[in-house]
Amino acid sequence: MSGRSPEGDDDKALAEAARHREKMAKRKAVQDAEVAGKTIEKGLVIVHTGAGKGKSTAAFGLVLRMIGQGRKTAIVQFIKGAWSTGERAVLERFGDLVAWYSMGEGFTWETQDRARDVAAATRAWAQAEALMAEPDLALLVLDELNIALRYDYLPLDRVLAALAARRPDLHVVITGRNAKPELIAAADLVTEMVAVKHHFAQGVKAQPGIEF
Amino acid sequence: MSGRSPEGDDDKALAEAARHREKMAKRKAVQDAEVAGKTIEKGLVIVHTGAGKGKSTAAFGLVLRMIGQGRKTAIVQFIKGAWSTGERAVLERFGDLVAWYSMGEGFTWETQDRARDVAAATRAWAQAEALMAEPDLALLVLDELNIALRYDYLPLDRVLAALAARRPDLHVVITGRNAKPELIAAADLVTEMVAVKHHFAQGVKAQPGIEF
Repeated sequence: MSGRSPEGDDDKALAEAARHREKMAKRKAVQDAEVAGKTIEKGLVIVHTGAGKGKSTAAFGLVLRMIGQGRKTAIVQFIKGAWSTGERAVLERFGDLVAWYSMGEGFTWETQDRARDVAAATRAWAQAEALMAEPDLALLVLDELNIALRYDYLPLDRVLAALAARRPDLHVVITGRNAKPELIAAADLVTEMVAVKHHFAQGVKAQPGIEF
Repeated sequence: MSGRSPEGDDDKALAEAARHREKMAKRKAVQDAEVAGKTIEKGLVIVHTGAGKGKSTAAFGLVLRMIGQGRKTAIVQFIKGAWSTGERAVLERFGDLVAWYSMGEGFTWETQDRARDVAAATRAWAQAEALMAEPDLALLVLDELNIALRYDYLPLDRVLAALAARRPDLHVVITGRNAKPELIAAADLVTEMVAVKHHFAQGVKAQPGIEF
């Protein structure tokens, strides 16, 4: 008991609680003003890029969130392997709220055939354009489209033109490393997933439920 | 026709195809060697942090991926509001593969009462510890735990000790901005979601299926 009175401690605690209340009240005011200032509703072009994990996984989460709103979604996979059979099994439970198109021929270093990769990307893109024309689709995921654009399997201009011409309330999510600057410029929401630390470096292998 | 022969074009295309094949074969060899070098299986501590979007959404995607493997998952929400009723409706379709605990009292600037926030975080953490003791749980999401740690609503030491003492095959996902350096040090996989561009800056409001 080094001379501090219990009353002093109480005063200190009360003062701290008051400071905390004041700080949080200010934050709430800022937050409320921000929410009130946002009035536009529009379909978003969302890009998940970067070398870190979570690009396709967060897109998958958005699909489920949209399904939770009872709205229709579709996924076109430009590269096979990014989404797993487990995920597919989950989505199949939601019947006609999810349309799934796996158009890739496998990762590009698996095929080693540029002409085949270009043909697969072209087919996938035609599917994407057909889906964009559907009047009741709420969310379209173009998974690993950035890879197809990076290797010039698809003309960027065609992709940008289709995004610009789409129904104004359609949300589109595009995933993959190395998003093109022109696509970032055209997007509304861009998140870069940065790998801070990765268990593969410790020799841990891909495990069910985490990587697939 | 500026003097180029069709044969020359064919030769160029063949040479390009050969270069592409060679490059991709090398990448495949590197990839195969990397996969072969990873032999450890273990439960991961996964951290999604950063100011960008997708931290909770990617955790939600991981829950669905694990469900797709037929394994049990649980979510403890330390802050109310990060996950929506739509997401909850989706997860409820998977019955006993998902246990959902919403323990937060609302965002901290909504409550303006530190003692109440501390009590809510303490209850949520007790729930997390109870879930860690379940023998058949495969994945535990501690959503927005980083916020509770940042405001010292919970002692970091207690969290780190519980993570270190958990069943070795249990995967734990921790989300929220400003992850503590000690937590990053203890984690296996850390991804920082960086906001490159955000539609709120354009006055676009939160919309169903995207933000909630």
